[in-house]
Amino acid sequence: MSAPKAKPEPKTLNRRLVQRPELPGVRQRMYDIIFEADDDAGRWFDIGLLVAIVASIVLVSIETLPEYQIETTIDGVSNVSLPTWLVAGEWFLTILFTIEYVARLACVRHPLKYAFSFWGIVDLLSIMPSYATALTGESARSFVILRSVRLLRVFRVLKLWRMMSQADELADAVWNSRDKIVVFLAVVLVAVTISGTLMYHIETVMLGDSHDSDFTSIPQAMYWAIVTMTTVGYGDIVPHTTIGKVISAGLILLGYSLIIVPTGFVSAELSGRAPEPREQHPCPQCGAPTHRSDAMYCYRCGNHLDQS
Amino acid sequence: MSAPKAKPEPKTLNRRLVQRPELPGVRQRMYDIIFEADDDAGRWFDIGLLVAIVASIVLVSIETLPEYQIETTIDGVSNVSLPTWLVAGEWFLTILFTIEYVARLACVRHPLKYAFSFWGIVDLLSIMPSYATALTGESARSFVILRSVRLLRVFRVLKLWRMMSQADELADAVWNSRDKIVVFLAVVLVAVTISGTLMYHIETVMLGDSHDSDFTSIPQAMYWAIVTMTTVGYGDIVPHTTIGKVISAGLILLGYSLIIVPTGFVSAELSGRAPEPREQHPCPQCGAPTHRSDAMYCYRCGNHLDQS
Amino acid sequence: MSAPKAKPEPKTLNRRLVQRPELPGVRQRMYDIIFEADDDAGRWFDIGLLVAIVASIVLVSIETLPEYQIETTIDGVSNVSLPTWLVAGEWFLTILFTIEYVARLACVRHPLKYAFSFWGIVDLLSIMPSYATALTGESARSFVILRSVRLLRVFRVLKLWRMMSQADELADAVWNSRDKIVVFLAVVLVAVTISGTLMYHIETVMLGDSHDSDFTSIPQAMYWAIVTMTTVGYGDIVPHTTIGKVISAGLILLGYSLIIVPTGFVSAELSGRAPEPREQHPCPQCGAPTHRSDAMYCYRCGNHLDQS
Amino acid sequence: MSAPKAKPEPKTLNRRLVQRPELPGVRQRMYDIIFEADDDAGRWFDIGLLVAIVASIVLVSIETLPEYQIETTIDGVSNVSLPTWLVAGEWFLTILFTIEYVARLACVRHPLKYAFSFWGIVDLLSIMPSYATALTGESARSFVILRSVRLLRVFRVLKLWRMMSQADELADAVWNSRDKIVVFLAVVLVAVTISGTLMYHIETVMLGDSHDSDFTSIPQAMYWAIVTMTTVGYGDIVPHTTIGKVISAGLILLGYSLIIVPTGFVSAELSGRAPEPREQHPCPQCGAPTHRSDAMYCYRCGNHLDQS
Repeated sequence: MSAPKAKPEPKTLNRRLVQRPELPGVRQRMYDIIFEADDDAGRWFDIGLLVAIVASIVLVSIETLPEYQIETTIDGVSNVSLPTWLVAGEWFLTILFTIEYVARLACVRHPLKYAFSFWGIVDLLSIMPSYATALTGESARSFVILRSVRLLRVFRVLKLWRMMSQADELADAVWNSRDKIVVFLAVVLVAVTISGTLMYHIETVMLGDSHDSDFTSIPQAMYWAIVTMTTVGYGDIVPHTTIGKVISAGLILLGYSLIIVPTGFVSAELSGRAPEPREQHPCPQCGAPTHRSDAMYCYRCGNHLDQS
Repeated sequence: MSAPKAKPEPKTLNRRLVQRPELPGVRQRMYDIIFEADDDAGRWFDIGLLVAIVASIVLVSIETLPEYQIETTIDGVSNVSLPTWLVAGEWFLTILFTIEYVARLACVRHPLKYAFSFWGIVDLLSIMPSYATALTGESARSFVILRSVRLLRVFRVLKLWRMMSQADELADAVWNSRDKIVVFLAVVLVAVTISGTLMYHIETVMLGDSHDSDFTSIPQAMYWAIVTMTTVGYGDIVPHTTIGKVISAGLILLGYSLIIVPTGFVSAELSGRAPEPREQHPCPQCGAPTHRSDAMYCYRCGNHLDQS
Repeated sequence: MSAPKAKPEPKTLNRRLVQRPELPGVRQRMYDIIFEADDDAGRWFDIGLLVAIVASIVLVSIETLPEYQIETTIDGVSNVSLPTWLVAGEWFLTILFTIEYVARLACVRHPLKYAFSFWGIVDLLSIMPSYATALTGESARSFVILRSVRLLRVFRVLKLWRMMSQADELADAVWNSRDKIVVFLAVVLVAVTISGTLMYHIETVMLGDSHDSDFTSIPQAMYWAIVTMTTVGYGDIVPHTTIGKVISAGLILLGYSLIIVPTGFVSAELSGRAPEPREQHPCPQCGAPTHRSDAMYCYRCGNHLDQS
Repeated sequence: MSAPKAKPEPKTLNRRLVQRPELPGVRQRMYDIIFEADDDAGRWFDIGLLVAIVASIVLVSIETLPEYQIETTIDGVSNVSLPTWLVAGEWFLTILFTIEYVARLACVRHPLKYAFSFWGIVDLLSIMPSYATALTGESARSFVILRSVRLLRVFRVLKLWRMMSQADELADAVWNSRDKIVVFLAVVLVAVTISGTLMYHIETVMLGDSHDSDFTSIPQAMYWAIVTMTTVGYGDIVPHTTIGKVISAGLILLGYSLIIVPTGFVSAELSGRAPEPREQHPCPQCGAPTHRSDAMYCYRCGNHLDQS
């Protein structure tokens, strides 16, 4: 709708000044491709990286599926191994990421500084598990948590979002509503605490221990209140007494009324954001205050307008 | 509110040019009734077809209900048959659709071309199962998947929608929000991946195998995250540990905040769609099409406007 | 916001002409109190009636609670009776409604015509069960369905709503969106049919009968699709296979995107409803087209405006 | 967006006149800090109090967790005690609240009047349980309900909200929609009653007692209707018959259509709040306050306006 705003990004600029090689040449070109997304080469690099990261996340996810785990028992020792194609894919990506890591180190001005920066450590940690498996002979599963660090690399390619002008709008709408969201969360937490405590007392304390209540503690009841008020409603914790059902029905209706409010806030924020202001070009002769941007003559006095 | 736009539909036009019989006559008239919905006869044909298609879908659905399956055992061989009225209805619709198929073939300019087009194949496949049952003597159930192809024929009568001007509005609103929906889905997938992996580690890996977790793998945990964040909340997978409940309560609140955003987007899109059209006063001299209602001079050529 | 519109209600008017006693007097006054809600007496009668109807619904509801049913076994015949206060309340309301019914018959112009009208029959049916219980000696429970007819009497006092100007707004918003709602329901039904059939085939047919699927038939799967797409998510029917979970996760996201659209429609309808049109008073001298309603001079040429 | 309105708060003013010490000095200063939040000291006191209250709620919640209850059996008598750090935290907060209570009593003009006011009693009750435990030797759990009174103290610091201008907006939006919310709740209750009764009859009465229905009574069925219509959908009560599923699927779609309406109301209320203020050009002659931006003559007195 409106053109994406080209706001200067001081952080990026700052990083560029610090880490971008001073002299033009291969290293500076590499740096621009790997770290920036300003030209086509940089964008394609990022898209390729995004595909590789998504693939590596898919592989880590598949590895946890019981269907893909081959259990073998040798000499009474049970061992879990993965299908060959999974292991191969894993190694292919590890080598890709290793090349990328080395390339990053090679093209920054201060490689050590990069290696100990947040992203440097994340990059290293995301290639470590495969090598660790090879060296120690341990099963790949042992490093499943470590391997999940790769997930963080998704944020790496978030700069691609700048390509989509809509992302700014989304972020703006959420950002403009931040105060309302804080107030809303405070209201929700108070409501959750009060209704959780209420239900705990009604279902558990008042009815004695003879009754088999799902509301075993106040935190449990607060978890129920959150699950209920957001209309998720798992059904793992439900009231079993008539009075509990009556109260919770009332709380559901109240909670529902409460929780629809933020939807309205964001809607309002998004609706009101782009009222397409008419450009302001006061006519120097008659003073008519607003003209459309492409007007050459004042609509009121016919005076020729200078559009400088 | 606004009059339905009469936009030219090049695709329909194209098809008409290719398949509509050249010479006026019975075949051209048949073609217009069967393939178009521009006059009353065409619309009534489509409505009748819609009724027949819905009836056939209802029949296929009912056939899968255990209540309507008569199990008979002859000579130790158990056989599942359907009530007579279901079989009769099935045949009635098959014959109707056969007539329709033959009529379609008869009135298009190039019958072979139609027979091998997408809709031609769908039409054929939707009448095949009944004949196949009769010929092979197999139970009707064997062809249940094939019979579901009929479902696709629902899309056939979608051209009826043009009768309802509101459908355009709906489609426009969704279409205008497509960029936002893509961004939104990307955000949701990242959120689902991160919260799924997090919950998998908390509920399964960290607590050891002694604990009976519902989060058996990362894909399973991601399925949980989608079910939870959309507030569907089946309850087939729920956290069982206190820490898991605390984290998931937080994720629910975050996810809920995230997921309400698209609602706001579509609302905003629909609210903002009719932005108070500028009055139309084309300038008689230069032809500039729109001027504000109180303009006395054309903004482009400075010509004095007559506001009669 | 805007003043409630005083639209003439031809149906009410019509009924009044037919049934309202011609001559002023006690019967006409009674008629106005019982059948209309135009003055204070009529409104208080309706409020009292509303309280009585709500009380009778509460009683009927409580009677079905197992806690309030006293089971006694005399001579081996088990008998279910109700607490005295419930029976007393029941009779109190029955007598009230009987008086009301007789009063209604007494004050209308054509009592027989009223007795056989829709509301006349509903009024009779809502007092019948108590007398039937007394006469036949049967348990009150036998007439529980008949007693529920009383529920319909709630609509009787809907004319009270006219007191609340907001009800018009609500009704208008829903009414203005009726075309969109029809289109929306058509889209939902197509989506439900397709996703239901898809899930049935994936979970049941493709995987063979060895698998214990919740999707036992296409109607069952369509019920699942409705429960899921509206984000109700009972969890009584859930996919058990990995592929089923993947497909249903996709369907949930698609369905969620689909179902948020009507929310936007109603929001847009409500937001856009009061665009506060500037009154149209073209200036007879310079032709400036719009002036505020209280303008006495043209804002452009200063001409004195005649506001007739 | 709009500046927070500085509305006078007569209630606060009133309380201040009654309880604030007349003479300036330490007591008046203490009063301002403890009871008001108008300067920095008062705000910091309130923030500190909020932290203490939240901490005390967290402690009470944790005490109900089975994980934190140490069961000891001495001489065959089982005894439940709490970890030392929980008891210590409890006492620390009790002493803090005691000091606060004494300080409050010390600085108000009429201490007795305060002691018997609502907040005075709440303050006392929230420190009582710990002393009662110490005196009677009973387990802390016995006073868990009494201890929950502390929860009410959260409302004490609600005056902090005045710091956040957005809270007013939220409250205004809800307040402006109050009539609509009442109408909406009436509609929901009628819908819940009718669909609950309907489902009860379909699932229980019509199908006889042989069927194991979840809809054991009308109130239970109404609870189901609320849980379903708000899309919470626990799944503890679900239809088991085919006809019950068909009806409930219809009710879900109807209920969903119904329940999305209030979302629209609040959205509309929030969107419409800032209706594009007309430009302010007061007429120097007659004082008419607002004119359109391009007005050359006052609409009221016809005076020529200078648009500088």
